[in-house]
Amino acid sequence: MTFDNNVATKFPKLAPKGPSGELFLANERAKGTFDVNELAKFMYTEEWLQKMHKVLEVMESEPAFDKTNRYYMSRKDKISTSLWKDKRLIEVAKEQNWDEQDTQIANFLFDQSSPFTLHYNMFIPTLRNQTTDEQKKLFLEPALKHRIIGCYAQTELGHGSNVQGLETTATYIPETNEFELHSPTLTAAKWWIGGLGKAANHAIVMARLITDGKDLGPHPFCVQIRSFEDHTPLPGITVGDIGPKFGFNTVDNGFIMFDHYRIPHVAFLAKYSQVKAGTGEYSKPPNAKLSYGTMVFVRANIVLGVRYALAKATTIAIRYSAVRQQFVDAANPRKWDNKVIETPVLDYTMQQYRLLPAVAAAYACFFTGREMMRLYNLNQEAMQQGNYSLLADLHASSSGLKSLTTTMAIDAIEDCRRACGGHGYSMFSGLGQFYQDYLPNVTWEGDNYILTQQTARYLLKTFRNVVAGKAEPSEYNQTVTYLTQFLENPKAKCPATKPEDFLNPELILSAFGFRAAFGIAQVAEQIDRHGRSWNSMLVEISRISKAHSQFMLIRNFIVTLQNDEQLTKPESRPMVKVLRLLASLFALHTMEKELSEFLVSGYLSADQSAMLKEQVIALLEQIRPEAVSLVDAFALPDYFLHSALGRYDGKVYESMTEMAEREPLNHSLVVDGYDECIKPFVVKGSKKLEGSAQPAKL
Amino acid sequence: MTFDNNVATKFPKLAPKGPSGELFLANERAKGTFDVNELAKFMYTEEWLQKMHKVLEVMESEPAFDKTNRYYMSRKDKISTSLWKDKRLIEVAKEQNWDEQDTQIANFLFDQSSPFTLHYNMFIPTLRNQTTDEQKKLFLEPALKHRIIGCYAQTELGHGSNVQGLETTATYIPETNEFELHSPTLTAAKWWIGGLGKAANHAIVMARLITDGKDLGPHPFCVQIRSFEDHTPLPGITVGDIGPKFGFNTVDNGFIMFDHYRIPHVAFLAKYSQVKAGTGEYSKPPNAKLSYGTMVFVRANIVLGVRYALAKATTIAIRYSAVRQQFVDAANPRKWDNKVIETPVLDYTMQQYRLLPAVAAAYACFFTGREMMRLYNLNQEAMQQGNYSLLADLHASSSGLKSLTTTMAIDAIEDCRRACGGHGYSMFSGLGQFYQDYLPNVTWEGDNYILTQQTARYLLKTFRNVVAGKAEPSEYNQTVTYLTQFLENPKAKCPATKPEDFLNPELILSAFGFRAAFGIAQVAEQIDRHGRSWNSMLVEISRISKAHSQFMLIRNFIVTLQNDEQLTKPESRPMVKVLRLLASLFALHTMEKELSEFLVSGYLSADQSAMLKEQVIALLEQIRPEAVSLVDAFALPDYFLHSALGRYDGKVYESMTEMAEREPLNHSLVVDGYDECIKPFVVKGSKKLEGSAQPAKL
Repeated sequence: MTFDNNVATKFPKLAPKGPSGELFLANERAKGTFDVNELAKFMYTEEWLQKMHKVLEVMESEPAFDKTNRYYMSRKDKISTSLWKDKRLIEVAKEQNWDEQDTQIANFLFDQSSPFTLHYNMFIPTLRNQTTDEQKKLFLEPALKHRIIGCYAQTELGHGSNVQGLETTATYIPETNEFELHSPTLTAAKWWIGGLGKAANHAIVMARLITDGKDLGPHPFCVQIRSFEDHTPLPGITVGDIGPKFGFNTVDNGFIMFDHYRIPHVAFLAKYSQVKAGTGEYSKPPNAKLSYGTMVFVRANIVLGVRYALAKATTIAIRYSAVRQQFVDAANPRKWDNKVIETPVLDYTMQQYRLLPAVAAAYACFFTGREMMRLYNLNQEAMQQGNYSLLADLHASSSGLKSLTTTMAIDAIEDCRRACGGHGYSMFSGLGQFYQDYLPNVTWEGDNYILTQQTARYLLKTFRNVVAGKAEPSEYNQTVTYLTQFLENPKAKCPATKPEDFLNPELILSAFGFRAAFGIAQVAEQIDRHGRSWNSMLVEISRISKAHSQFMLIRNFIVTLQNDEQLTKPESRPMVKVLRLLASLFALHTMEKELSEFLVSGYLSADQSAMLKEQVIALLEQIRPEAVSLVDAFALPDYFLHSALGRYDGKVYESMTEMAEREPLNHSLVVDGYDECIKPFVVKGSKKLEGSAQPAKL
Repeated sequence: MTFDNNVATKFPKLAPKGPSGELFLANERAKGTFDVNELAKFMYTEEWLQKMHKVLEVMESEPAFDKTNRYYMSRKDKISTSLWKDKRLIEVAKEQNWDEQDTQIANFLFDQSSPFTLHYNMFIPTLRNQTTDEQKKLFLEPALKHRIIGCYAQTELGHGSNVQGLETTATYIPETNEFELHSPTLTAAKWWIGGLGKAANHAIVMARLITDGKDLGPHPFCVQIRSFEDHTPLPGITVGDIGPKFGFNTVDNGFIMFDHYRIPHVAFLAKYSQVKAGTGEYSKPPNAKLSYGTMVFVRANIVLGVRYALAKATTIAIRYSAVRQQFVDAANPRKWDNKVIETPVLDYTMQQYRLLPAVAAAYACFFTGREMMRLYNLNQEAMQQGNYSLLADLHASSSGLKSLTTTMAIDAIEDCRRACGGHGYSMFSGLGQFYQDYLPNVTWEGDNYILTQQTARYLLKTFRNVVAGKAEPSEYNQTVTYLTQFLENPKAKCPATKPEDFLNPELILSAFGFRAAFGIAQVAEQIDRHGRSWNSMLVEISRISKAHSQFMLIRNFIVTLQNDEQLTKPESRPMVKVLRLLASLFALHTMEKELSEFLVSGYLSADQSAMLKEQVIALLEQIRPEAVSLVDAFALPDYFLHSALGRYDGKVYESMTEMAEREPLNHSLVVDGYDECIKPFVVKGSKKLEGSAQPAKL
């Protein structure tokens, strides 16, 4: 893949109007009161940061990982450069002797999915978990060597979240000891399958197992789909790319249909359930509670991803807002070298209100992601010993948190983009494609609306248990704790009497616990006493899931700051002080957004809500000087951001013009189509007006 | 421009699983209780609908207006096909003898901006309004014949909303009777200028006029920038395309820099202010209050555009939600031909809650757009007679309404896209590119946050006037009316005692008026009594603008239904009944979203808020059977929608597969890059597993 970077259009060598972005950012960095490196190490560990820098150096010097042309490519170019990256990453990892974490970091830094992504994220893990030893030899081993490239084919054109509705069938044929895969209708076409469109030669296909005339529902099969000789689709298969998407166009999401396509008996992934060769007799899988653990893991990882999404978006928007100036604030004019300058937009309260809560949310997600991983491991250990007591709460929280935090992230990316004004709309901001590529997170691994029902079901069940005296509060189950507190005092009132009272962590936690419990109690009453149907309650159901998840996010933030041993060192005090401000801002801004729920319960009064708002504005003012340092501490390198607006050095305008020079339309002075579409209108020989040629007649 | 539509990949001829989309939609259409055509005529007039169908027929048969390849194009293809469309539209309009409205309808139906768009929307209107007769001959006449193609160059790389901060200079040179255009810094580069990148040979350039050593601030100049001979940039000019954007990639937004570039004296647009030839003496423009009228016009047009945006998004999402099924609702299983089927997602309350308020909002914007145009005309007449009494209120409302309604529209487009589940993410939904292209509306013609300050300034001033007894309520000034009512009874309470009370239009209007007035009074108190700075109040300031604008939207909806003569016919009753439900839903859903503001003022109690929520759910249930008919009444043809999901005939899945067949990646069976990136890993000669080759050993 080569690009023509000959440039026909060059900007003159001029500097932007001063003061420069570099000076503005240096000025901001001087204002921060804490040690940026200390905070970065606290978040990531020093070891991870070192690995990141090691990998970064390689990424920046390898042509296949170069991002220079990322924003100019056609769909076809995107797919072929992505394949090239996939191939080189395999080679480079070997050359550099990278371990698994190094490769993860490389993918993180490259920050763009590609045709092989699902091979690693779904095909190989499925083979690891669901195959017999024989199948591991046949499928997993070649997959690990990339002799076969796979994908995971579950959803269909007409069937998304409801797996039980899938139409593709796999009928056992005892005579030949084969299965026959078949797509009975158009809606049975597998659809959206990443890597299937062009790259994969194998697929895990979820199909309804039919044996002995019985439909046993969806089961996984490992199926060859393209030839080893020339990569053409095998006979009986229709396969291709599903076409352009809002984002993710570097991935070949595909479709596939089967026309009575025969596969061998061994294609049926047989670790948990089996079909007996010859007879077709089916044996059921054992109890599959363990699979809930996997869902928790996947969702915990999505929440960990949210922290990067928020960190990336806010890094770009905060840095640019410190450099970009707009209007002179007449009441408080900014000066530089004793001259009045336009005010950097970060000094406007509205801009702070739009951006600083998102910075706080990024930190909140750091701590919750970490806590979810800790609980996941704790629970896995417990389950190994037959103890399933943590699972339900953890699964419910992870569903609600996936739903809440990915919605927070996508909203924040777009809020940050808009907060960058006109230039936020340029692809060079780095925020446009990011938004497009991040968006599927709100739909996949459980649609964000549907997921809230899982959380709510658990919350209502727990509520009924607490009411019935069948649940005890415990360190591992905060839900029971806040429900118990609520039931002890369902008419509780917020004790705040002045704005600063809202900085009290205990007050915050009580308020969020009360609000979640109040909502749950209301829904329970409607369903259990008034006989309202589940369907008619879906709006309130999504609200209680959100209330619970916000409680969890805020609690994890506050508890980490109270208990983490690394934070007890005296030299950490400035950092801890700023983190406390962020925790307060995150909680109080959330409370303000959800204000009506705190008011309706009678917990908060109108006067208190005025105090709350006052405290939010006061926090913005306190955090404002730390803003650039707080995003610096996310430690996201320029290579990762690939943004003209978010560069560490603040050279926003130099970068915008360099990137514009590379626009392919600028490689020629005259546009394709001029001869046919413009020239015919222009009267040739028309003269340019000259000053002397047009003496003033006015 | 030609496209290779050879298709290597063909889907088998299979039907989707039944019942078909056609049957589902027919069933929905049978449920509607009002006459769809009657409603369409009421909204658009019969005459407009006829014109639309006449133009549509031409659009559908002209290759340059074909949308088939719209979603697959590279940036370069987008620009050249857009130029081709621009050229053909000029020719076709002549061939068909279209009037201005016909051409407007053609552009509406084509629904995609292009390089010439700004020539029509900004270049020609500016020349019309700001030139002398001599200049009309030199510039306007050739522009109308497309001998010159122009654009409007105001914003700069470093300067957006603050026009006074522009850096480009135009210095008068008496010796040669010329101006010298110059870009002193990199940030002075004109940037974002539609049509400038590749197409235009002229630009209106806003530059600081400097004459006799005095800087007189930005003034407009009409400047030739590319050669009449070969379209190359003229010496002294650096011009090009600013590169890829989040959307709008069919337009060549450009940059331009001037290096001591000389233009003749006549280039200065001299209708309102003049520079005397030879001496350079400057004469000021007369009072420019009339320009506020123009802003009202532009913003009224944006609100009129909002109604189409909401109509388009909801048409797609509602139709698809009637066809798409997901899960069997166990408590209330749907049946078709006596067989249980999965439930169409539109039957889920949550889906109704996500979509039906947006349908209601589309209707709300229809009525408010119409009312703004009426007031604009009324005000223009009044101003001609020296009566400026309507202007301030109208200008303030139009600023707030532009801000509010474009934000509503973009949110609704994205909500509709997400409500389409996975397929919403496909470009074939028609919602992705629509979102991308619509988005600049929240930034241009006044950033949506900054605009709220203009509205709030007026609201605060009016409040002070009302308090001082210096303003009388009038039919034309609702602001004074609701402020007066509030001041008469600032402790008023909502009289509702049961859910249905919220259907009372008077109750609704009183509630929204009270809530707006309460917010304004609070902000006034903070600023006037407590000395809070404007900057520290920006968050609350944006809230009062929103509150006022929501009042206006709701009032216009309600008043139209009360007063419009067309609605008094007995046969219109079924239609009026449904419109009333929509007005109630729009108002009550808005009240629910802004609930905290109604609670904080003490106007609404917690019990009443529960009644309100109950009434919203009841309205969803009542409107549900009308949903498809209500979007049918928007009368948006399939050509306009260009959406696989939103087709009138419901053939969703057939359309998705047809569009996938056209994906350029599917024109060859084997992907570019296979030889280099996949083949080296695959061991050639590996055998496909066969059923008989792998006898079961388990």
